[in-house]
Amino acid sequence: MTATQTSGEAFEYKPVALDERITSDGSSRWPVEAGRYRLVVARACPWANRSVIVRRLLGLEPVLSIGLAGPLHDERSWRFHLDPDNRDPVLGIEYLGEAYRKADPGFDAGITVPAVVEIATGKVVTNGFQQLTLDFSTQWTAFHRDGAPDLYPVEHRAEIDEINQAVYEDVNIGVYKCGFTNSQDAYAQAYRALFARLDVLSERLEARRFLVGDTITEADIRLWVTLVRFDAVYHGHFKCNRQKLTEMPVLWAYARDLFQTPGFGDTIDFEQIKQHYYGVHTDINPTRVVPLGPDVRNWLTPHGREALGGRPFGDGTPPGPPPEGERVPAIS
Amino acid sequence: MTATQTSGEAFEYKPVALDERITSDGSSRWPVEAGRYRLVVARACPWANRSVIVRRLLGLEPVLSIGLAGPLHDERSWRFHLDPDNRDPVLGIEYLGEAYRKADPGFDAGITVPAVVEIATGKVVTNGFQQLTLDFSTQWTAFHRDGAPDLYPVEHRAEIDEINQAVYEDVNIGVYKCGFTNSQDAYAQAYRALFARLDVLSERLEARRFLVGDTITEADIRLWVTLVRFDAVYHGHFKCNRQKLTEMPVLWAYARDLFQTPGFGDTIDFEQIKQHYYGVHTDINPTRVVPLGPDVRNWLTPHGREALGGRPFGDGTPPGPPPEGERVPAIS
Repeated sequence: MTATQTSGEAFEYKPVALDERITSDGSSRWPVEAGRYRLVVARACPWANRSVIVRRLLGLEPVLSIGLAGPLHDERSWRFHLDPDNRDPVLGIEYLGEAYRKADPGFDAGITVPAVVEIATGKVVTNGFQQLTLDFSTQWTAFHRDGAPDLYPVEHRAEIDEINQAVYEDVNIGVYKCGFTNSQDAYAQAYRALFARLDVLSERLEARRFLVGDTITEADIRLWVTLVRFDAVYHGHFKCNRQKLTEMPVLWAYARDLFQTPGFGDTIDFEQIKQHYYGVHTDINPTRVVPLGPDVRNWLTPHGREALGGRPFGDGTPPGPPPEGERVPAIS
Repeated sequence: MTATQTSGEAFEYKPVALDERITSDGSSRWPVEAGRYRLVVARACPWANRSVIVRRLLGLEPVLSIGLAGPLHDERSWRFHLDPDNRDPVLGIEYLGEAYRKADPGFDAGITVPAVVEIATGKVVTNGFQQLTLDFSTQWTAFHRDGAPDLYPVEHRAEIDEINQAVYEDVNIGVYKCGFTNSQDAYAQAYRALFARLDVLSERLEARRFLVGDTITEADIRLWVTLVRFDAVYHGHFKCNRQKLTEMPVLWAYARDLFQTPGFGDTIDFEQIKQHYYGVHTDINPTRVVPLGPDVRNWLTPHGREALGGRPFGDGTPPGPPPEGERVPAIS
């Protein structure tokens, strides 16, 4: 998603503009196909992070390449400033907005990641981040790796959807509601909903390793992308500061467990995360100074959650290491 | 001190403008005298907090009354917006600036607290916050309460002065250097100096209860006024976020020990502290939203520092409760 929302009375989520689907069942005009699409993401963005994790866990890397927008925007939003010549090497564009306007020359909504682009035409196919990862699980099955986990098991979908909805409102979007407002009341309401929800989730996770069933599912991925950014960004920048994540023992251990699981921590670049939020949101950080803290080495400390049992990948296996060119810096 | 500095390349301390002394030895034109002066402070301000604590510990309340500027400024700086009619009941003024201009009609430097005002003339006598508390200890001795501690013992002055200087540069002013800059380099330099100094202080305090000797001295007071504001303000607002104070075990226990000592915690109003920093520094918090966190009830938890020995008040005794009208809200 974009993160260049301006501060308003209360933060409102604006629906994505190109909410199409890529399917294997003929239900849309975009068929699942190896090598046809490019997934454009940014390390900074939690909404994009979901898709990066699911792609890794399911082993879609060989059939769906990735383009990495850098953390910093100019007035034209996401751009490929980390690439040689500031251009995505496959799409050849400098700004992700170019691919949006190829799809719709009059496009004037938010330029958001994740965005799936058809490589041949350079057009954005979809930026529907809510459906995208579910389709990775259910439509791209022909290309799942051997040992890919089932992240959206049929028997648990109702429960996953219900948790996802609450986590979305109070946590994923909730942190933005806290940060992107000039209204003390709107902030207070969002803050209370956020921590009330985190308390409920913490209680739920006290005696069980994962949110639903005994394996990692889409529900864990969606909660985790917010938790992993909590102390680095949301605690200070968005004033979500009842406690740090490190001061919420159950959620902190849960988040470390996943961080140390292949496919999670190996998608995280804390520097890019901080550079993005602190460098781009000049409405709430006019100095653009990026904090040096927090110390993130504690993400690698033992979490003890194995004692709760659970089978992280169910009948499947962990993914191998990320492909060359998609590695993040080690924590130091 | 004022806290309405604008962000510059690097924060620079501007010397106070009316750095006079009130003495008992005839060395200045202002003699120590009961009832002649009013000490104007704000609960929010760490520099003023020093003077509030020392006045309490020495028992100067009956001879030196206190005026409480509120946490919020308008363009005319500190004002008495918590008082009936928005006027200090003794000085009769709405803005502290009025007392500065009575002393110097052309006054155009920073309006800062603490400021000592001569009640009869309404003129500021001094805003020299560095010397003020030392003079409370050394010049106002005729009015010290029975059992007043010696906060600036002759045999330890060199050591106290040395620590005070380092704490001033790296900690007291250091947090402002972190927050009040547009320069990533200036921020980084201040951040590193701050946490390096805190590490040194933490090591020093590991096996000894107080900074100098075995009693509370001026050195503890000066360090503590910054520590007590650390998690509520400096951690997020000024980006001093390597850790929270609560994550630095020695300093956190040391700070709680003093918080729970009469004369320290009973001078602290966390709400006013947060309202001031987040409400007044619009250069770094344009939304003016005041964070609801952190949870501060942990300030009342056991600290275990009694095991280190030490005699908090030396041969003296703790002060009684604050006078009516000077009580702060209980932590909740």
